[in-house]
Amino acid sequence: MLITRRVEFSASHMCRSPSLSERENQELFGDAANPHGHGHNYVVEVTLKGEPDPVTGMVLDLKQLKDILERQVIQHYDHRFLNYEVAPFDRVVPTLENIAIDIWGKLEPHLNGGRGSLHSVRVYETPDLYADYFGGKE
Amino acid sequence: MLITRRVEFSASHMCRSPSLSERENQELFGDAANPHGHGHNYVVEVTLKGEPDPVTGMVLDLKQLKDILERQVIQHYDHRFLNYEVAPFDRVVPTLENIAIDIWGKLEPHLNGGRGSLHSVRVYETPDLYADYFGGKE
Amino acid sequence: MLITRRVEFSASHMCRSPSLSERENQELFGDAANPHGHGHNYVVEVTLKGEPDPVTGMVLDLKQLKDILERQVIQHYDHRFLNYEVAPFDRVVPTLENIAIDIWGKLEPHLNGGRGSLHSVRVYETPDLYADYFGGKE
Amino acid sequence: MLITRRVEFSASHMCRSPSLSERENQELFGDAANPHGHGHNYVVEVTLKGEPDPVTGMVLDLKQLKDILERQVIQHYDHRFLNYEVAPFDRVVPTLENIAIDIWGKLEPHLNGGRGSLHSVRVYETPDLYADYFGGKE
Amino acid sequence: MLITRRVEFSASHMCRSPSLSERENQELFGDAANPHGHGHNYVVEVTLKGEPDPVTGMVLDLKQLKDILERQVIQHYDHRFLNYEVAPFDRVVPTLENIAIDIWGKLEPHLNGGRGSLHSVRVYETPDLYADYFGGKE
Amino acid sequence: MLITRRVEFSASHMCRSPSLSERENQELFGDAANPHGHGHNYVVEVTLKGEPDPVTGMVLDLKQLKDILERQVIQHYDHRFLNYEVAPFDRVVPTLENIAIDIWGKLEPHLNGGRGSLHSVRVYETPDLYADYFGGKE
Repeated sequence: MLITRRVEFSASHMCRSPSLSERENQELFGDAANPHGHGHNYVVEVTLKGEPDPVTGMVLDLKQLKDILERQVIQHYDHRFLNYEVAPFDRVVPTLENIAIDIWGKLEPHLNGGRGSLHSVRVYETPDLYADYFGGKE
Repeated sequence: MLITRRVEFSASHMCRSPSLSERENQELFGDAANPHGHGHNYVVEVTLKGEPDPVTGMVLDLKQLKDILERQVIQHYDHRFLNYEVAPFDRVVPTLENIAIDIWGKLEPHLNGGRGSLHSVRVYETPDLYADYFGGKE
Repeated sequence: MLITRRVEFSASHMCRSPSLSERENQELFGDAANPHGHGHNYVVEVTLKGEPDPVTGMVLDLKQLKDILERQVIQHYDHRFLNYEVAPFDRVVPTLENIAIDIWGKLEPHLNGGRGSLHSVRVYETPDLYADYFGGKE
Repeated sequence: MLITRRVEFSASHMCRSPSLSERENQELFGDAANPHGHGHNYVVEVTLKGEPDPVTGMVLDLKQLKDILERQVIQHYDHRFLNYEVAPFDRVVPTLENIAIDIWGKLEPHLNGGRGSLHSVRVYETPDLYADYFGGKE
Repeated sequence: MLITRRVEFSASHMCRSPSLSERENQELFGDAANPHGHGHNYVVEVTLKGEPDPVTGMVLDLKQLKDILERQVIQHYDHRFLNYEVAPFDRVVPTLENIAIDIWGKLEPHLNGGRGSLHSVRVYETPDLYADYFGGKE
Repeated sequence: MLITRRVEFSASHMCRSPSLSERENQELFGDAANPHGHGHNYVVEVTLKGEPDPVTGMVLDLKQLKDILERQVIQHYDHRFLNYEVAPFDRVVPTLENIAIDIWGKLEPHLNGGRGSLHSVRVYETPDLYADYFGGKE
C-alpha cells in the first residue's frame, strides 16, 4: 500500500538556461525568465510503498518520516532562491520536473531498507500545475 | 515522469439517454435528468508522460500546453449546455465518464510526437466526484 | 457571535436581461448570455448572529438549521435552470448578487424569533467570485 | 477507466498497540497514544475501475454507490471512537493504513459483479497525510 | 487593519450537557452525544487588529504570535478529549461556539498592549461549519 | 452588499528593513530576511461595496473589474522580485500588511464613481496567513 505525507516550502526561482541566449530564454519561459526571480509556495507530496507492520500498523514511523522531510527537503529549499543557493540549480533549470527529480535524489537514500521504500515525489508549483517523479521507474 | 495542468470550465448538462423512456431516465438519473439541465464548475486535469528536455528542463513547453487546452477544451465546453451545443453529447449522455473520454479524443492528436504524450485525463464534476481516463490503455 | 453553515447546489443559469437587446446582453454578459445557459456548483454560506444557549452551548440547533437550509434553499435551487424554473429569475437576472438577495428572502422568515437571527448570506459562483448580502442593513 | 467518490466521517481514535508497553506506545506514537483518544475529520475516496455502460454512460449507478458507502462506511465509522466501538480496532491499531484496509474489506463484497469493481481506497487523516490501499494487488 | 493566522489541532469531544437527561441529549445532539466521543481536525483563525509598525511593516511580530498560539491553544487542545482533559469542558458543552469563546479567553491576555490587539477568533469544526467570536463586542 | 473577486500572482520578496542592522533584520524576520529573497503564490481578494443595478443585476461589470485587476495588480506584481522591481518596496518592507495597503492605493482611484466602491483588500501569503485592509477606515 501507499502512504503519503505533504509538506510545503516557499522559494524563489527563475527559469533560465545558461545554454540558451537571452532571447531564447525569453521566448521559452516568458515572464518566468525574469533574472530577479519570482516565487511560489511549493507543496511536496512524498509517497512510500510498503506493508504496515503487524504490531504498529504503520508502513514507516511517521515521526521519523517527518524528520527526514525536514532535514532533506525543507532545510535545503525553504526561503531560498533556488538558482543561487541550492545545487544543482546553478546548472539545471529549476522547473517543476527538475525539482521533483532533485527531491527524489535527496530522499531516496534515507528511505530504503525498512518496511517501506520511496514510491513517488509530487511537487506542486501552484494548485494548477504539478509533476510526479517515480525514480525513473516509469 | 508525469506533468499535470488543471483548467476549469462552467457548463450545463442533463443526464438523459435518448434510448431510455422518461420513467427510466428519472429512475436512473433522478434530479440530474431534469430536461432544463443543471450545471457544474468542471475541473479538468490533463497529465502528460515524458522525460524533461535536458536544456529546458520541461517535458512540454507549458505555454504550448496552455494554448492547446484553451483551444481544444475550454473553447468547446465553457459556458455551453453540453447536450445541445457540444457533439457527441446530442447522442451520448454527458456523464463524467463520457466527458473524460471526449476530452481525451480532443487532446490526444495534439499531444503526441514530442517528448511527452497524453497519459490521462481527470474530470471533476464536484470536489467529491471525478473520473480518470487513460485512453483505453488501462 | 456568529455561526456559519455551508451548503452546495448545482444549477444552470444565463445572464440576460429581458429589458436589454440581444446585442446589449452580449456586450454586457459575454458568453454568460448564451440562451442555452451554463452552470455552476454554487456554494452558500449562511451566517447567524446570536448568543449560545447556556445549557446547550448552541446559538441555534444545528439540525434545525440544516433542515431549514434543505427546505428553503436546496430544494428550490438544486438541479434547476434558474431562469426557467425558479422565481423571480424569470424577471430578474440570476447574477450572484440577486441570488444572494433571493436566498436571504427565502431564509429570513424562518430564522428569527429564537436566540439567533440571520446575519448574512454569502454565495460563491466559483471559488474566485462571491457575494455577501446583509439584508440591506449594510 | 476509474471513477472516484469522496465521503467524510468524523471519528475518534488512539494509536496504542496492546502488544506494546506504555512506554513503547508513548515513544512510538507520542501524543497520539493518549488513552482518552483524539479525533479527525476523515476523508475517504473510493475508486472503481470499469467501462461505462453504452446506454447510461456510467461505470456504476452513482446513487447505488452512494448507498453502499453510506451503509458500509459512514454508518460504521461516523461519530465513533474506533478503538472501542468498531471492530477490528479493539485488536488492531487504527492507523490510516489499517483503516484503509478495513474499509476495503467492508466495501469489496458489495462492489463486484457489475461493470465496475473496487480499484482502491484512499483515506485522509488530515489534508497532509493519506494512505492508499489496492486490495493487496500492488 | 487586520492580520490573521490559521492553526490546526486534532481533538475529540462529545456534545452532552450534564444538565440534560440522556434522552434530551440524544434528541438535541444526535450522534454527537455518543459518550465515547468523536473527533475533528479543528482549524482556528486568530485575527489581530492594529496598524503596521512603520519600520518593520508588521502589526505584530509573527514569530511571537506563532509562539503564543502554540503555547495558549495547540498545547492545551491538540490530541485531547476536550470534555475530560480541557477545562472548562468538564462543565460546558464543547460546541464550536464555546470552543471559540474559550480560545478567546486563553489568547486575549497575551495579545494586548502592543500595536495590535485580538479582534476575533474563528473555529472550524469541518470546512462546512464554523463560529466567529469577537470577545462579546459584537 | 459586497462582491469579491479573487486573483493570484507569484512573486519574490525579502523581509529586510533598510533602517535596521543586519543583525536586527535577522532577529526580526529570521529566514525571511535572506537577501536572495524567497517567494509565494499570493492570493488577492478585492471586495466592492454597492447596490446591484436593477437592470443588469450587477454591482460592477465583472469584465471591467477583471481588466482593472489585471492592469493595476497582476501586471505590476506578477513574476517580480518586489523589493527590487516594484515601488514602494525599495523603501518599505513588503510584508503582507504593506502589500495590502499598496494594492488598495493602486485600485481605489479606479473603483469609485460608479455603483460600487472599494471596500477591502485581502492578501494571502500562504493559506495560513493573510491581511485585510479597509483603506484606513477601520
